Amino acid sequence: MSKLLTDTVQNIKPLDKNSMSIARTRQDTLTKPAGSFGRLEELSIQIAGIQAKSRPEIKRKAIIVMVADHGVVAEGTSAYPQEVTSQMVLNFIRGGAGINVLCRQMGIKVMVVDIGIAAKTTSFMGIIHRKIAQGTQNMCRGPAMTVDQATQSIEAGIEIVKDEYNKGLDIVGTGDMGIGNTTSSSAICAVFTGKTAAEVTGRGTGLDDTQLEHKIAMINQALTLNKPDSSDALDVLARIGGFEIAGLAGVILGAAARRVPVMIDGFISGAAALIAAGLCPQAKDYMIAGHVSVEPGHLACLEYLGLKPLLNLNMRLGEGTGGAIGISLAEASCRILSEMATFEEAGVSEKGAN
Amino acid sequence: MSKLLTDTVQNIKPLDKNSMSIARTRQDTLTKPAGSFGRLEELSIQIAGIQAKSRPEIKRKAIIVMVADHGVVAEGTSAYPQEVTSQMVLNFIRGGAGINVLCRQMGIKVMVVDIGIAAKTTSFMGIIHRKIAQGTQNMCRGPAMTVDQATQSIEAGIEIVKDEYNKGLDIVGTGDMGIGNTTSSSAICAVFTGKTAAEVTGRGTGLDDTQLEHKIAMINQALTLNKPDSSDALDVLARIGGFEIAGLAGVILGAAARRVPVMIDGFISGAAALIAAGLCPQAKDYMIAGHVSVEPGHLACLEYLGLKPLLNLNMRLGEGTGGAIGISLAEASCRILSEMATFEEAGVSEKGAN
Repeated sequence: MSKLLTDTVQNIKPLDKNSMSIARTRQDTLTKPAGSFGRLEELSIQIAGIQAKSRPEIKRKAIIVMVADHGVVAEGTSAYPQEVTSQMVLNFIRGGAGINVLCRQMGIKVMVVDIGIAAKTTSFMGIIHRKIAQGTQNMCRGPAMTVDQATQSIEAGIEIVKDEYNKGLDIVGTGDMGIGNTTSSSAICAVFTGKTAAEVTGRGTGLDDTQLEHKIAMINQALTLNKPDSSDALDVLARIGGFEIAGLAGVILGAAARRVPVMIDGFISGAAALIAAGLCPQAKDYMIAGHVSVEPGHLACLEYLGLKPLLNLNMRLGEGTGGAIGISLAEASCRILSEMATFEEAGVSEKGAN
Repeated sequence: MSKLLTDTVQNIKPLDKNSMSIARTRQDTLTKPAGSFGRLEELSIQIAGIQAKSRPEIKRKAIIVMVADHGVVAEGTSAYPQEVTSQMVLNFIRGGAGINVLCRQMGIKVMVVDIGIAAKTTSFMGIIHRKIAQGTQNMCRGPAMTVDQATQSIEAGIEIVKDEYNKGLDIVGTGDMGIGNTTSSSAICAVFTGKTAAEVTGRGTGLDDTQLEHKIAMINQALTLNKPDSSDALDVLARIGGFEIAGLAGVILGAAARRVPVMIDGFISGAAALIAAGLCPQAKDYMIAGHVSVEPGHLACLEYLGLKPLLNLNMRLGEGTGGAIGISLAEASCRILSEMATFEEAGVSEKGAN
């Protein structure tokens, strides 16, 4: 591992128990039956532990959308052509994509990163240029990338979240775009969870039955050829990963090292979370699962990581869209903790006072 | 039925199929795999049908919190004393309650209505005064209210939502406060769904096992004594209902008659929805279930009404809190439909173009 990666992993510490304890006590004094805000109470306490603040704040919110292409699309594993990856980046820039709409409503900054698009994007304004290569290699023919490239991609994610943290980031969401990236994510999911490719592979952007069978066969071919070592997350990433998955793993680790909560979006973000947790199991405490995707591998990822999704809206878009809604719930949870009156402040009688 | 109620029920028409069809077609042209926004796509199409607009808008949002007391608390069915009802109204006025916090974040107007608080509230500023009586009668000893009072309560709800509609309301959420109101709601739920009191009764604000048994026994006593007729929703409401439940039924009917979508909150709102659907089955198409509460009767209500909740966050607070989050999802669904670019607008290649 590089020095930046090693340092980052070493800076990921346990949650702050003291802040969590104070937050929990305060929740029980607020003007509501104890526990009646359910998951939102638990979430506020987790964020208190992450931020090491008994009254955590979620004001400055960002979603980092990592974009990259995948060599495996040469095998015909996606319903959409590769050019859609760069076309969608232009859509992000113009504000016409799903993630733009949700983030406008919810006051979240969208940051789009070219970390490996198979097209020239130098003229694209308003994105972050961190291209490692013009897409990965085809994992059905060999490793998707070198270990050096995997490390560079993770470092890009760490550095981007660090820069944003220095501007005062309170929460970050993971987002992705990249034609072919459910294929890579299913392969990663199979390696870590021990499930078969068939169990963790879905229709992505809309494959029919025959195309789904082919996708599963290609994933099995990639796994047989590359033999990724599940005890070495960097090895898994290099052999069957993607640049955006690596970049998001870096975002997760970089955020956790700075005590910033990470809202995990869908299946691709889940694969990135598996890589991040493989590099640093402690990072799991900093993750919040925004939703569970229709892609069957996503639930497997979340269960493996011990994460319970906040939402189940049958979504499967990626881009960080499930995470955007999750961030608004995280904000709500912290506002409840800080802004609600206590029984004493409001002069409301407590339970059993009758 | 009174003329206002009869007229309101007669004005509740089927959803507008044409707007729904145009909205559905547009969803499939937006820059995302078809169907990938899941429940949010369905929701936008339902709201298109409700508002009879192919590009529905959710800008002006309100939650109407109906507040009332319940005579049945004399039987010791609640963990909190009755005075909490009026104390919480002061908390609403000062902005310190859970519903205030969520609505501030989500840009929703909170309207608090005294429809039957067992205390003098004439000095309370900033609430709507529509008091029918100082709490219902004890349903374990006789009917909770007269049929006239039930009708007046419903009419209050219709009139309040009508006034707000005249100011340009796009969506309304139902909210409630009233110590003892889960007892009444469980009784209503049992009558309509045919389930036993034990199946649809929960711990409310926090009863222990013995208190829960007693609550169930009191509900059974009220049902045995009053013999509510499930084919006559007004009769059910008068015998075992509450003023806030009646008022919310009026809000639902009044909104549906004006093609305003209604975000149903938790268990008490669910009981109001049962009454509204009993008076006018067509009203069900105008309902959206924001979440499912921990109170076991709520899921029974939703299943009976054929509503699928958007969220399951283990909440059980009422006040409209689950509905507030639901309203933000409804807004998101309509923004997605209107604001996202189409494949053509964005110059993005479509599926199967490779």
